[in-house]
Amino acid sequence: MTGAAGFIGSHLTRLAVSQGHDVWAAVSPDGSSERLRDLDPGITVARMDLRDARAIRDLISKARPECAIHLAWYTAPCGYWNALENLDCVTYTLNLARRLAEAGCARFVAAGSCAEYDWSNGDGLLTEFKTPLKPQSLYGACKKATQELLGELCARTSMTFAWARFFYLYGPGEARDRLTPSVIRALLSGETARLTSGNQQRDYLHVEDGAAALWAISQSAVTGPVNVGAGCVISIRQLVEVIAELVGGDAPVEFGALPENSGDPPVVLADVRRLMSVTGWHPAWCLRDGLRQTVEWWRMHTA
Amino acid sequence: MTGAAGFIGSHLTRLAVSQGHDVWAAVSPDGSSERLRDLDPGITVARMDLRDARAIRDLISKARPECAIHLAWYTAPCGYWNALENLDCVTYTLNLARRLAEAGCARFVAAGSCAEYDWSNGDGLLTEFKTPLKPQSLYGACKKATQELLGELCARTSMTFAWARFFYLYGPGEARDRLTPSVIRALLSGETARLTSGNQQRDYLHVEDGAAALWAISQSAVTGPVNVGAGCVISIRQLVEVIAELVGGDAPVEFGALPENSGDPPVVLADVRRLMSVTGWHPAWCLRDGLRQTVEWWRMHTA
Repeated sequence: MTGAAGFIGSHLTRLAVSQGHDVWAAVSPDGSSERLRDLDPGITVARMDLRDARAIRDLISKARPECAIHLAWYTAPCGYWNALENLDCVTYTLNLARRLAEAGCARFVAAGSCAEYDWSNGDGLLTEFKTPLKPQSLYGACKKATQELLGELCARTSMTFAWARFFYLYGPGEARDRLTPSVIRALLSGETARLTSGNQQRDYLHVEDGAAALWAISQSAVTGPVNVGAGCVISIRQLVEVIAELVGGDAPVEFGALPENSGDPPVVLADVRRLMSVTGWHPAWCLRDGLRQTVEWWRMHTA
Repeated sequence: MTGAAGFIGSHLTRLAVSQGHDVWAAVSPDGSSERLRDLDPGITVARMDLRDARAIRDLISKARPECAIHLAWYTAPCGYWNALENLDCVTYTLNLARRLAEAGCARFVAAGSCAEYDWSNGDGLLTEFKTPLKPQSLYGACKKATQELLGELCARTSMTFAWARFFYLYGPGEARDRLTPSVIRALLSGETARLTSGNQQRDYLHVEDGAAALWAISQSAVTGPVNVGAGCVISIRQLVEVIAELVGGDAPVEFGALPENSGDPPVVLADVRRLMSVTGWHPAWCLRDGLRQTVEWWRMHTA
């Protein structure tokens, strides 16, 4: 597992350990592995920079994985959307997959993104193999190219390959500058949350449900892209209003205070029929409960 | 210049030196640089493995290139079409381009391939921005993904980017196991040249014309993909018959001795209108003269 201490990865690692698997967790050298602490001795933590080809080889030869789940990717809060570091992620992902295939790993599952799709296509329902891919960011272009090349690579080896296209996730532990945490933090500290019109409708899924979907994909035989989302949308305005209600008090929200993001589509909705039919997965959290848990988590972590 | 001692690269290096440019020639550590010998002191030869990120950084910091022409790619005679080494070429190409952009290089020109196109589309005339891309090989998929990512990378930097999609080249010094050299060598040594039906029509261009086209592209302001081909086709049967005639004697050729390659399209033809309109380039060699020169070259090199 790479990105094993991350937002999705930490939940995934927990699932894998709970089912009795030996987990090797690749963790960035300078990142925290706090979230994995209570999983010892079920996991082996390997601190490494994935750009280091030798470290990848060493890890694979020690771990001899049957299945690899690759989540690590550049996600610095500001500007990751078009940062050139995305290209490093392409290269280390290809290198990792190639070495795994050579080492006889049977399955490779990695994280893609709804940003690979053409968001201007149709009504916003994005469907694997049907909606054209047309990324508007370097991040999306790098995810798309990586998926294509991994598919070609794995078609020529005995390693099967699935690609989980994540939509919008929320939950405890999300990076503090992303939308949900920044709204919650502003409101908890009594600041005004300043937003766009908030009319955009987005597919929001609790991170634990996302991790469970990815785990189900990894344990299935499905190959190729699989959307991971809730399969329903909420407007950003509604999302923020629920948060404001959960925070309580006079939490002030100002819609329309920020300009609309150009190119922001009205609807981004995951078609999750493929995910559900191949894995039997269903989300466990309803949005209001999930947001309540998230608000409580931030209340504890900003005290 | 990478691949500077190669089939295309050696001609290109010669062109660049003849026009008074300072050329830094990156040459594979274990390859011959024989073809560049008489260009000293016009060029600086740097022996390096492009997979070595530090070597790339060192070269760029020494050479400080205004323009980089990147030809190096894995082309081992047997099986390069689907070799996993193609993935290494993606990664070192992205790394090279990224470092060049960071170092302020103004222009990056690299070699693509007609193998990026959907060969089953239409009548076989392949046109930039019009014919869909749908590679049937890992080689083609890697070239296609590389072009897409380089385009995204360069759109976010001040480095301009052009991508020369080469069709079929021939000429002195081609790798001995490729079609033209293997037919010439067989016939020169009195062996029977065994072929498929030979009905496939292909766009064959003399390597010096290909290098001149690439040079013209590099010196122009064109961005994105540009086909490099003759703009006309010859059947493999006719090509081989011309070679047999030039070799002379009773050079025996057996058409139909080998099975057809599945998926081999009837026609692969470069639309070169974009190349000609943006650069003014025209081919200098006619096919018969070029093949005569090539046959004579092999006569000298197999004696």
